[in-house]
Amino acid sequence: MDLHTNTDLRAFFEPRAIAVIGSLNEWGGLGYTAIKNMHRFNFTGRIYPVNPSYKEALGLRVYPDVNSVEDPIDLAIVITPKQTVPGIIDQCAHKGAKAAIVVSDGFAEAGEAGALLQKQLVEISRRTGLRIIGPNTIGTLNTQNGLVTNPYFISYDKIHKGGIAYCSQSGIVGAQGQPLNDQAYPISKMCDLGNKCDVNEGDLLNYLANDSETSVIAMHIEDVKDGHQFIDTVQKVAARKPVLLLKPGRTERGSKASASHTGSLAGNERIYDAAFKQAGAIRLNTWREFWEIPRIFVNQPLPRGNRIAIITFTGGIGVASVDAAEEGGLAMADFSPATVSKLSKLSPQLASNPVDLGPIIPVTDDPLPLLEQTIAAVLDDPNVDCVTATLYASTGAETPIYMDIFDRVMKNVTKPVSIWIYGTELAAIEELSRQVQGRGLPAYFDIELAIKALATAARYSRIKKQNVTI
Amino acid sequence: MDLHTNTDLRAFFEPRAIAVIGSLNEWGGLGYTAIKNMHRFNFTGRIYPVNPSYKEALGLRVYPDVNSVEDPIDLAIVITPKQTVPGIIDQCAHKGAKAAIVVSDGFAEAGEAGALLQKQLVEISRRTGLRIIGPNTIGTLNTQNGLVTNPYFISYDKIHKGGIAYCSQSGIVGAQGQPLNDQAYPISKMCDLGNKCDVNEGDLLNYLANDSETSVIAMHIEDVKDGHQFIDTVQKVAARKPVLLLKPGRTERGSKASASHTGSLAGNERIYDAAFKQAGAIRLNTWREFWEIPRIFVNQPLPRGNRIAIITFTGGIGVASVDAAEEGGLAMADFSPATVSKLSKLSPQLASNPVDLGPIIPVTDDPLPLLEQTIAAVLDDPNVDCVTATLYASTGAETPIYMDIFDRVMKNVTKPVSIWIYGTELAAIEELSRQVQGRGLPAYFDIELAIKALATAARYSRIKKQNVTI
Repeated sequence: MDLHTNTDLRAFFEPRAIAVIGSLNEWGGLGYTAIKNMHRFNFTGRIYPVNPSYKEALGLRVYPDVNSVEDPIDLAIVITPKQTVPGIIDQCAHKGAKAAIVVSDGFAEAGEAGALLQKQLVEISRRTGLRIIGPNTIGTLNTQNGLVTNPYFISYDKIHKGGIAYCSQSGIVGAQGQPLNDQAYPISKMCDLGNKCDVNEGDLLNYLANDSETSVIAMHIEDVKDGHQFIDTVQKVAARKPVLLLKPGRTERGSKASASHTGSLAGNERIYDAAFKQAGAIRLNTWREFWEIPRIFVNQPLPRGNRIAIITFTGGIGVASVDAAEEGGLAMADFSPATVSKLSKLSPQLASNPVDLGPIIPVTDDPLPLLEQTIAAVLDDPNVDCVTATLYASTGAETPIYMDIFDRVMKNVTKPVSIWIYGTELAAIEELSRQVQGRGLPAYFDIELAIKALATAARYSRIKKQNVTI
Repeated sequence: MDLHTNTDLRAFFEPRAIAVIGSLNEWGGLGYTAIKNMHRFNFTGRIYPVNPSYKEALGLRVYPDVNSVEDPIDLAIVITPKQTVPGIIDQCAHKGAKAAIVVSDGFAEAGEAGALLQKQLVEISRRTGLRIIGPNTIGTLNTQNGLVTNPYFISYDKIHKGGIAYCSQSGIVGAQGQPLNDQAYPISKMCDLGNKCDVNEGDLLNYLANDSETSVIAMHIEDVKDGHQFIDTVQKVAARKPVLLLKPGRTERGSKASASHTGSLAGNERIYDAAFKQAGAIRLNTWREFWEIPRIFVNQPLPRGNRIAIITFTGGIGVASVDAAEEGGLAMADFSPATVSKLSKLSPQLASNPVDLGPIIPVTDDPLPLLEQTIAAVLDDPNVDCVTATLYASTGAETPIYMDIFDRVMKNVTKPVSIWIYGTELAAIEELSRQVQGRGLPAYFDIELAIKALATAARYSRIKKQNVTI
């Protein structure tokens, strides 16, 4: 691993040795909590707590300062009062650390004095080559090696490994503000860029483009530090992996709020929007979309076209879902004569899209084979590019049968499927959702979101084709 | 109770005596299940099962036909093979029943033969004055008297009583397809109108307008049977209670799908949209909105204006929420000097809207008083019409403290508040949400939805003012 190139961000995600500089008070000290989180995540690297007031903490030897650590340090996590940060960063650079995450806040986001302090960090970084994420960040998370720099208590033990990189410049995109485990988000990396005094969204995109664990990048940005660099980077990266952007400031007041929160110009919204689109990024609108839409890119193939088939258990939902499909740029597939014939044999009422199993299921002795034959017929249709199917979460006894059905019907199929799960009990809906996602099928609690996920995949499929022909 | 007026729908919701005509097979017979559901809901009326093959079922005497029941019948629930339905409906009319819910399907929605059969039902209704809901419906639900005509197994014992009437022409809006209990929806009535051969959406609106248990009407419609009557009715009802409509068919293809599903013309979308708006109905876009937005009208006052204050725990969410506010027609409130001064005393960083508690909470010994003072200051500001506040769901230990805070700050306040709940564990989020809703505060899992709820309330507030001045 070569950490000497200045553009290399690997030390932020794949450090062999970390110094944690901060309070080791076991009642919520931020350094203490960060280390405890890493222990719980089974971090594979070495941890060196740094604090002059302790000799030992969490079973680890504590060093009075970074220089006292005998071994090389790849990454320093700095969680100290803001005035002390420049001096500590300087020490880290002299120690040979490649990277520092500055968790401390009170910098550019907090007024002029903080901005001056932040400027000192930038100067040290420029002078020494030490790369900095932050300040005002909860840092990084890597599900491969158990790295988690979050200094706030994380209430679960593990999160699901998978292909989504969630990036942000807000602490909400972290392990302390989302039910990552309960929702079974398949995660490769997370990163909160904070104030972006050095490492910016373009740098991060470049790193994630080359990260083999990441198959889709979901990025929340409020401002862009270097517009040209970022747009160029998006264009390069989007040709390889989907880049999904949540950028508030669609409205004038939202744009102003963004500027005042980040301490930098939010920029002209319309110019951004056009540039993002041209570069091949896909914009998302809500936090729910930010968390949920990326799932579709993790284990599913891209749709070859934009023709969707929708299988529901009630006609009312089916009709409403047609709007969601059309608004997302999908077209309702016209079934081939062979499919119409197959579905008609199951029941004459089934032969149109959306396929409504609602009237059939109550009068069928065993509805599961009917569900399987319907999904298989629809997936097999050459006029169908992608499918949203519905599952009813009941007692849980049907879960293995559902799984077997998908194992069989998805065999040799290279079309993406998204699942809408409904039922009367939240716990059952959520458990079935986790099971379905464990099989690589993205599951959603809203049919509109299940369809929008496929619409986003179809859109990325077009972006990729255009990039290939360039 | 006068059930003789033909326009009176009370027998559908407030029957003293019901005949249930259908299969009493205890392994899923639809009549059996409907009765069992009512027993579990503690239905307060009398139930008369009707089936020639049984003498007794579920502890009740079974009658060979409706005429054999000695007592008067208000409502008949008919769940028999479609060919038998006209004859049975005729008998019910002769018996003096005021109303019949035809659950059976295979009528107009299933082709020409079914449409002819449905026509017979209409003729009987016109001739005898017996009002019919359906066919192809799961009927009605009333939380006041435990009435539930749903013939499919319902996996919970009770749902929360409250002010929302959910109406639909789809079986998805029923107790068998939604986690009504887990989500703590405050419900007065539910009604699936099915094929609307007789009772239509306008009739239902009129009934609900006069229903003192209902404070907001959420209605899913695919087609409108009598456009002029409906628009007139909406106008009258919307002056008294919010009428929220989910009408698929916003797109051309969606409109066609609706027409083919309901067997009637879906109509010109743009004309509908304009007419709904002029009549004072508010249109919703997704099923999630259909279920979640009405909560804001149950226990909260209407906002006097459209100026919102947003209190979050992270700036990133705050900025994104500004877009949601503006897009919903709300304006970000400009705090009065008194409020700026109060908030600045808590922390200089707090004095702007959205109020971001994120940087303050980790450095505060006890963040709950800070949260309380912030909410109180913001609610007290004359420039603020409504507030979205954030709560973090943690161990559950903080729940009673949250409740006390809201008890104190909401005292003497006549502004609506919506709550966004976040956290790392779904179960904790959902439990806190139920607790918060138990206190009459609408809780949401997405901040955008919490804000859209207030935006919808502000919109209805304007509609009501306009209607008053007319």
